[in-house]
Amino acid sequence: MNILDIPTPALILDRERFMNNIAHMRDKLADFRIPLRPHLKTCKSVQAARHILDGQPQSITVSTLHEAEYFLAAGYTDILYAVSITPNKLKQIQNLQKAGANISVILDDLEAANMVNEEAIRLGTVIPVLIEIDSDGKRAGLTADAPSLLNVARQLQEGPGTTLAGVMTHAGGSYYCKSTEAISKMAEQERNAITSAAARITKAGLPCQIISMGSTPTALFAENLNGVTEIRAGVFVFHDIVMRSLGVCKTSDIALSVLATIIGHKTDKNRLLVDAGSLALSNDRGKPIEDGSYKMGQIVDVETAEPYAGLWIDSTNQEHGLISLEHSNYTFNDFPIGSQIRIFPNHACITAAAYPQYYVVDGSDKVIEKWDRCNGW
Amino acid sequence: MNILDIPTPALILDRERFMNNIAHMRDKLADFRIPLRPHLKTCKSVQAARHILDGQPQSITVSTLHEAEYFLAAGYTDILYAVSITPNKLKQIQNLQKAGANISVILDDLEAANMVNEEAIRLGTVIPVLIEIDSDGKRAGLTADAPSLLNVARQLQEGPGTTLAGVMTHAGGSYYCKSTEAISKMAEQERNAITSAAARITKAGLPCQIISMGSTPTALFAENLNGVTEIRAGVFVFHDIVMRSLGVCKTSDIALSVLATIIGHKTDKNRLLVDAGSLALSNDRGKPIEDGSYKMGQIVDVETAEPYAGLWIDSTNQEHGLISLEHSNYTFNDFPIGSQIRIFPNHACITAAAYPQYYVVDGSDKVIEKWDRCNGW
Repeated sequence: MNILDIPTPALILDRERFMNNIAHMRDKLADFRIPLRPHLKTCKSVQAARHILDGQPQSITVSTLHEAEYFLAAGYTDILYAVSITPNKLKQIQNLQKAGANISVILDDLEAANMVNEEAIRLGTVIPVLIEIDSDGKRAGLTADAPSLLNVARQLQEGPGTTLAGVMTHAGGSYYCKSTEAISKMAEQERNAITSAAARITKAGLPCQIISMGSTPTALFAENLNGVTEIRAGVFVFHDIVMRSLGVCKTSDIALSVLATIIGHKTDKNRLLVDAGSLALSNDRGKPIEDGSYKMGQIVDVETAEPYAGLWIDSTNQEHGLISLEHSNYTFNDFPIGSQIRIFPNHACITAAAYPQYYVVDGSDKVIEKWDRCNGW
Repeated sequence: MNILDIPTPALILDRERFMNNIAHMRDKLADFRIPLRPHLKTCKSVQAARHILDGQPQSITVSTLHEAEYFLAAGYTDILYAVSITPNKLKQIQNLQKAGANISVILDDLEAANMVNEEAIRLGTVIPVLIEIDSDGKRAGLTADAPSLLNVARQLQEGPGTTLAGVMTHAGGSYYCKSTEAISKMAEQERNAITSAAARITKAGLPCQIISMGSTPTALFAENLNGVTEIRAGVFVFHDIVMRSLGVCKTSDIALSVLATIIGHKTDKNRLLVDAGSLALSNDRGKPIEDGSYKMGQIVDVETAEPYAGLWIDSTNQEHGLISLEHSNYTFNDFPIGSQIRIFPNHACITAAAYPQYYVVDGSDKVIEKWDRCNGW
């Protein structure tokens, strides 16, 4: 199948770039001898996971219990569900355990630890739990010096429905860094937080086997990972415009794109229309481009994936993308109606979630494989 | 099944509100004796369509060919595909025709009309085409006074691969109106554009049977629909925060919401976390609230759907929604970890697309039905 024969919009994955991105992360972590527990919320694909985990420990991170079920069915048993657990989800966790999963969950609250313990007892199971540590103030977790940290740790270790498996953190703050130097500092801040929390726990005589941190930026720009037992990262396998704007990847590393058809020439507005809109691209705004404006994706050549200078998705409706020719040297003649382009996404994880599959290409216009995805919850 | 037993995040549809919204649109259009060709891109659900079309002409509008296939399989044969057609999609159109569809398409360009004609001849079929008219400068279409309008019309009528079925427009500009009076004016602008275009075509001796306009705001606030043969609208069946902010609906008309679980208390930031993030809610920013900030959804009671004053989804990550308690009178005690809320979406069409089904409730906490959706392309 030729890429031009795929019904649009569609999700295109460049296998060579994908494989290079995996190799780059492996090389980076090999220097530190730290294993990767990839976050599969980005690819949500068994065929992609086979490559990411080839020859590596078969440990994975997921963001939904649906992902856990899907990857377990494919043979991945060592699973970290990295969104705070609540009692109403423990029956699903138990079902995963019964199906063979060694699944760990996270939480950051004493009341939650108590409730999870009680529900696990009621269900007749024991749940391994990591305590989430806040290393950047951006989302969830107890700070490493939080007074309640040891109470939560003790509750998890002593409650018969839970075991204390370790600590984890995610420095999403790295997405707001202004330079790769700042990302390196954020990685050190992340490492400091998680190892300090672990030290408090072990000093109190409690176990803390797993000391897990990670994000694609901090994983790739960390200079010191002493005391960390595993790294989690997800979007590094595809990269995207946000990662490029952070200096975390180059344009030629972006492996994911959306194939779209030129469906209109709005000549009185000097604007192209494509059949990729809010649903095909997502409404993730990413970061502003040089002129301060927000764009919804970058237009690249359908075969070479080379960017067209000055061409972006300026705005979207449900099934329409609008591309101004105003700030480019291109004309309507360069984009006949019915011809195709590809679009680099702002945020690969979110854009990919609209599609049931990847059309995998390998540096040419031939589709070599189709890989599936597990979306939803 | 009780609403509290649904795994979260999930899509909840209040059937009573949905039915009232349908009745309200019917009453409005009955005054003008204009039939509705509902845009099913919002609901994408056969079970929903049965109610929307109950006792009405069985004509529908779709935004993807996948919707066309899905609704055709359910018996809806009179279909308008309302996104500009291109030659590479005609094989799919022909397959729909062979399966029994009377499907019309749209375009707004002479070159496109030529290419569609040639490809239809090559395939051995004839495609009914409406010309898209630009009534608001927002997206696609020829203006009613465009010199090329009659050339396109003539090409469509004379090309053996096409027939000229009429004209259509969509006043998406109504989404930017500052008052319902402005929406009424926009409806008149839309009507003027589409009837002027039709008049030029018929004056040139060409047929123009269908004169189609519509958007939820202009359909509900039009004061004159003379000369129009059908109205298209979609989001009116669910409504959402954007429709409310336009004055097009009331809070008690919003029929769609996302069920979510409170997964964290970030006490040092006075913030709740829920398991509905970018994927569960979409990143559609909608319109700013009173203080000028953009929110990603409004928090409402899980059973009554009454809004909690001052509580919004302030920001999202892939699977996390963050809710500040700062500008409310609520405390963490009002939202125990593991308890549930519902969230009104900014833009119902986009939020719903993340889910394979609706859990339908009827003014209580009981799930009475599940309705499916056809997402993707």
